[in-house]
Amino acid sequence: MSFHSMWAELLPVGRSSASGGYRRAAWTGADADCRTWFQEQAEARGLTYETDRNGNQWAWLGDPAAGNAVVTGSHLDSVPDGGAFDGPLGVVSAFAALDELRGRGARFTRPLGIVNFGDEEGARFGLACVGSRLTSGALTVEQAHRLTDGDGITLPQAMEAAGYDPGTLGPDPERLARIGAFVELHVEQGRALDLSGDRIGIASAIWPHGRWRFDFRGEANHAGTTRLADRHDPMLPYAETVLAARREAQLAGAVATFGKIGVEPNGVNAVPSLVRGWLDSRAADQASLDTVVTGIEKAAREYAAARGVDLDVVRESFTPVVEFDHALRDELGRILGTGTDLKVPVLGTGAGHDAGILSDRIPTAMLFVRNPTGVSHSPAEYAAEDDCVAGVNALADVLEGLACT
Amino acid sequence: MSFHSMWAELLPVGRSSASGGYRRAAWTGADADCRTWFQEQAEARGLTYETDRNGNQWAWLGDPAAGNAVVTGSHLDSVPDGGAFDGPLGVVSAFAALDELRGRGARFTRPLGIVNFGDEEGARFGLACVGSRLTSGALTVEQAHRLTDGDGITLPQAMEAAGYDPGTLGPDPERLARIGAFVELHVEQGRALDLSGDRIGIASAIWPHGRWRFDFRGEANHAGTTRLADRHDPMLPYAETVLAARREAQLAGAVATFGKIGVEPNGVNAVPSLVRGWLDSRAADQASLDTVVTGIEKAAREYAAARGVDLDVVRESFTPVVEFDHALRDELGRILGTGTDLKVPVLGTGAGHDAGILSDRIPTAMLFVRNPTGVSHSPAEYAAEDDCVAGVNALADVLEGLACT
Repeated sequence: MSFHSMWAELLPVGRSSASGGYRRAAWTGADADCRTWFQEQAEARGLTYETDRNGNQWAWLGDPAAGNAVVTGSHLDSVPDGGAFDGPLGVVSAFAALDELRGRGARFTRPLGIVNFGDEEGARFGLACVGSRLTSGALTVEQAHRLTDGDGITLPQAMEAAGYDPGTLGPDPERLARIGAFVELHVEQGRALDLSGDRIGIASAIWPHGRWRFDFRGEANHAGTTRLADRHDPMLPYAETVLAARREAQLAGAVATFGKIGVEPNGVNAVPSLVRGWLDSRAADQASLDTVVTGIEKAAREYAAARGVDLDVVRESFTPVVEFDHALRDELGRILGTGTDLKVPVLGTGAGHDAGILSDRIPTAMLFVRNPTGVSHSPAEYAAEDDCVAGVNALADVLEGLACT
Repeated sequence: MSFHSMWAELLPVGRSSASGGYRRAAWTGADADCRTWFQEQAEARGLTYETDRNGNQWAWLGDPAAGNAVVTGSHLDSVPDGGAFDGPLGVVSAFAALDELRGRGARFTRPLGIVNFGDEEGARFGLACVGSRLTSGALTVEQAHRLTDGDGITLPQAMEAAGYDPGTLGPDPERLARIGAFVELHVEQGRALDLSGDRIGIASAIWPHGRWRFDFRGEANHAGTTRLADRHDPMLPYAETVLAARREAQLAGAVATFGKIGVEPNGVNAVPSLVRGWLDSRAADQASLDTVVTGIEKAAREYAAARGVDLDVVRESFTPVVEFDHALRDELGRILGTGTDLKVPVLGTGAGHDAGILSDRIPTAMLFVRNPTGVSHSPAEYAAEDDCVAGVNALADVLEGLACT
């Protein structure tokens, strides 16, 4: 089955006719349809199909017990009204790359695995990469049991309803010990390749990133009768801080976003008592990120003080830089730089991935496919079919270089 | 019963020990306690007590059927976690002024009414001045029947549960025709008197005011991977517009507030697709208000265009200037300027009142009592007892001048 046919088969699954986006949250009906499709693809190719203790799906060529396996794949779930490519491109390309290698008559010297990690997006339970986190031990069983969706359904309940046994959840070191390399192909979620004019790139690292909550506390008051000079309006330093975040990020070549806000009392005729804004910031390295966040916080404190408003800043989460395995990255560069006429720039990314989660347990690498608009997590997410096919060929080259004679 | 004793009696009613603020929403138990207190005060003074067809409470000295009555009073309900003064000060001062006049041996030549208008704050059903609007006809019975609180309880259901017959709701022109003047005393909701050093002021007008909704529409995107240059982030022009509103209002001596905001998808790691901000703006006259709002909208359109963001501006409500009756206002000025040594500045206000609603039906005037912090609709709302007593004496002077020989 060609890349084109596989893609066409997945395209209608979980697509909202209202938004044109995908609604493939973990352990829903749309997710189940995606998983059935995965199993069918595995069996149609004579691969050994299994689900692991955490509900991740695997398709094996050769016996993984032999060890030093090469694994590729990604995920099939989506954010709410997400695009078609984030996740599925890596899984479809994995099967297509295997077909390409069989067409080339390649002979495998290492076991090859194709994987679909469960619940990568975290759209339903609020935590990303649940499947890979459980497998690696980064998420404990106790923590997983406490995950609850918006309707009060727990992760174990949702898995059970989808036909999986949540009693087996837990770390899976034996499985990871059998894997010698994991290569995840993913649509780029930015425009670096578009700007450099390349179809394919290799990931260098996942940028360090964090979330900070800025609580501006002023004084609620009547919006009609309170003189401007008598106000302690937290919306003003919030607005100034939003603009400072943009400036600081621009100076450092980083990103900084205030995309979530909570206001009290949030009344049209009330000066707010509280404006709570969440900052998401990421940069290529820790020093740059520190510079950006320190600069924003310093500016915010000055703005707040000038407006008679109190400010608390709380770091809610933080993930340090993930450097992908250097040896594997260099190997990919060698394979793609000599075996084809592709240029393969090496670039960082601001997004988290299962490959990032697994990178401290096994050697991992990522390939990116050009995204001409950079848009992601949106129905408008797009990659040209020519570029997708170039991605399949690059992945086939990599798998051939790593796992074949 | 002295002002002080009446005040002390009302003080615990509906007070939240958690916030220190008042929760006296219309037709609740706390509101019923306030209304019982009103009836007791009326009866203790030998006044004729009645509730009208819209649930407003009245206490009469003399027969209102004689016509040309002088009425004073205010309201006893509160905003959520409001202050002790907004409303109750006018009702308590009305009874205290009558006591003062009786102490002076004044002889009334016109009927005197004391009123407690129902649901002035609109805290429960979202519309202010329901009692006076129904009486004046500014709110129709059909509109009143559609008012619903946060629990889905309609206004008629709430009135019935509180022991009032909602079947009688409707305009009450006969009642209004018997009233020759309405004088409402109210705590100032700003600091004009504090700044001028006066205890008491006379209202000139209620500023024209309106609400405008600014919808900034951009493009949802991944906050970690989308280059700053590729973003259409509506939070940025929103922030710039918040600051422009402050500048424009300051230039015009007006007020402008963004106190309510709605963001989609409101996710920490998502560039928003939509930021919706509500502008409340008020100014001393229509021309100033036009200047402010036009200036803000023009700036907002420039900011939005520069960020690649669309902007729609919708005027959601508008109330033109309310000029209080000039003859009555001048009469109050004469009484207070000659009969006492008070200075009585005449000042505008940005807040709506029952007196404003009634002003196109009957001659109305307002007295303001100094508010040293200007804080209102908050537990911190305050007026010094000396100033409250000065307010009672000023109101007594006014009633004596208007209704006594």
